[in-house]
Amino acid sequence: MKKFTNLPSDLVYEAALGFAAAHSNLVALNEDPLFVRRKAPNRSKVALISGGGSGHEPLHIGFVGEGMLDAACPGAVFTSPTPNQMLAAARAVASDAGVLFIVKNYAGDVMNFQMAMDMMDIEYASILVNDDVSVDSGGHGPGRRGVAGTVVVEKIVGAAAEQGMDLAACKRLADKVNACTASMGVAFTSCTVPEAGVATFEIGPDEMEVGVGIHGEPGRRRASVRPAAEIVDELMTPILKDVAAKAGDEVLLFVNGLGGTPLLEQYLLYHEAAQRLSREGLEPVRSLVGNYTTSLEMQGASITVTVLNEELKSLWDARAVTPAFKT
Amino acid sequence: MKKFTNLPSDLVYEAALGFAAAHSNLVALNEDPLFVRRKAPNRSKVALISGGGSGHEPLHIGFVGEGMLDAACPGAVFTSPTPNQMLAAARAVASDAGVLFIVKNYAGDVMNFQMAMDMMDIEYASILVNDDVSVDSGGHGPGRRGVAGTVVVEKIVGAAAEQGMDLAACKRLADKVNACTASMGVAFTSCTVPEAGVATFEIGPDEMEVGVGIHGEPGRRRASVRPAAEIVDELMTPILKDVAAKAGDEVLLFVNGLGGTPLLEQYLLYHEAAQRLSREGLEPVRSLVGNYTTSLEMQGASITVTVLNEELKSLWDARAVTPAFKT
Repeated sequence: MKKFTNLPSDLVYEAALGFAAAHSNLVALNEDPLFVRRKAPNRSKVALISGGGSGHEPLHIGFVGEGMLDAACPGAVFTSPTPNQMLAAARAVASDAGVLFIVKNYAGDVMNFQMAMDMMDIEYASILVNDDVSVDSGGHGPGRRGVAGTVVVEKIVGAAAEQGMDLAACKRLADKVNACTASMGVAFTSCTVPEAGVATFEIGPDEMEVGVGIHGEPGRRRASVRPAAEIVDELMTPILKDVAAKAGDEVLLFVNGLGGTPLLEQYLLYHEAAQRLSREGLEPVRSLVGNYTTSLEMQGASITVTVLNEELKSLWDARAVTPAFKT
Repeated sequence: MKKFTNLPSDLVYEAALGFAAAHSNLVALNEDPLFVRRKAPNRSKVALISGGGSGHEPLHIGFVGEGMLDAACPGAVFTSPTPNQMLAAARAVASDAGVLFIVKNYAGDVMNFQMAMDMMDIEYASILVNDDVSVDSGGHGPGRRGVAGTVVVEKIVGAAAEQGMDLAACKRLADKVNACTASMGVAFTSCTVPEAGVATFEIGPDEMEVGVGIHGEPGRRRASVRPAAEIVDELMTPILKDVAAKAGDEVLLFVNGLGGTPLLEQYLLYHEAAQRLSREGLEPVRSLVGNYTTSLEMQGASITVTVLNEELKSLWDARAVTPAFKT
């Protein structure tokens, strides 16, 4: 394992210091408990707060700022933040309009956010993001994971909150965006959690993990690497089935790098996915390509599709000024 | 080698199609010869044109748009574009105010841009970017390489051109920015050129290449991996010596990921570099952190420092609306 670290156990904290210093015009850091908040909070709106394990950057801290999140709580790498982080963040940024917690569907995140909410003396609601179609939500398992679609929820609901939408309506909008958003990923390599020091999973030199999670969780199947066009088709089929888009629909097409895949390859994936949409009679009227929800240095990518309407397009286009997402 | 490709020889072209489709509101693609240009050219200004081998994305195509480049010419991976690309791009975007070519200092780029300039019937000037302090410019070698400092030149001179600066003044400004900018990188891993299919260089599991170039060129020395603070000090010493910053100076601090290094580690590097600046009495009043000048999937990073004055700060802050750089 080769990484830029001093002590691996200090990486998240030291990186947070660097992040806050590099973006001191937009964000402020609270060191204990650790959270990032907007430097200039808008006190008349619903406060949007997210958080999760570190290692997915820029998610979530990179999206703190005007038009997206009011605060974000980074946990240790691939580990949920603690309830006192969420509670302190809420107290720092909440207004009378209340707090919306944006939670990715992982057992640790769900439990810790719930504990924070149980202690809240401020009006709140929460939204569980579970856009990953590689996991079946039937049965008694933990259900679908929250992956790159979280960025779409944070952007669209962030814009609505900035425009004055109330808490109940923000919650309904977030559920609606989550419902019309589907994602699936594929990995060529594992990542290595710095404090673990060994790869999260083994994978052969010609293999790929189809449906991988953003912590290296197993996906749908282990397969041989194939041409990009075939990989994209394997991801797009369940995505399009899930969002139930019909010919003529307008969509957001989002190709997300998992951390170690060159932008050149991500744009090739975009090209293939856009061609697939075209064959289905769907039009990608909005686009996002880049490393937005990563898994440390994992080589791989995911594709996210959100079915749009006029309201969602307008909110997607609305002003956002954050470290990692600017309109 | 695992990559998202169909035929490796088609990657650059297919990625360009994806790039142009994803950013169709900002750029237009010319397929033959291949170049990307601003969708809405400003016909009253000096046209800025850059280009170089692909594999460094978002450099250069990601910086085409308002306030930066008017056109960019992508070559094959790590291979200079051809003179007819530059010439066609110039003809497509030039106004009576002339063309400034921004060229990174590599033998192939210099030769091909020179051949294009020899055929120009439009007024032009050119600037050679050579910010890499890991290479000694003395003697008869090719001299210092152009690396991530190119982004700084394109941003600052792009803003000046947008504001109406004339060709001779843009050329002087570009030379000035290049002179007050220094960079140095370090790599943990090689990258693999898709059409080659094998790693560009070998490196041991505990080794790093200090002073690596953005095509995997050898640097100053091969060393054992050390704590991030020590790596940053080894990069910062020659950078600060080169720019000859003195206590009280304001600087731009730019940490650039080479493609495969997580943002978390890049922010740790920023933190360490900012602390070093502080010890020298220098203040990082502007910052940039992310994958801006990459070397495919190489794990590594570079640090760039530009000494600022009021004019350069104002131009750095000026409006830019491009796929990869928005103010």
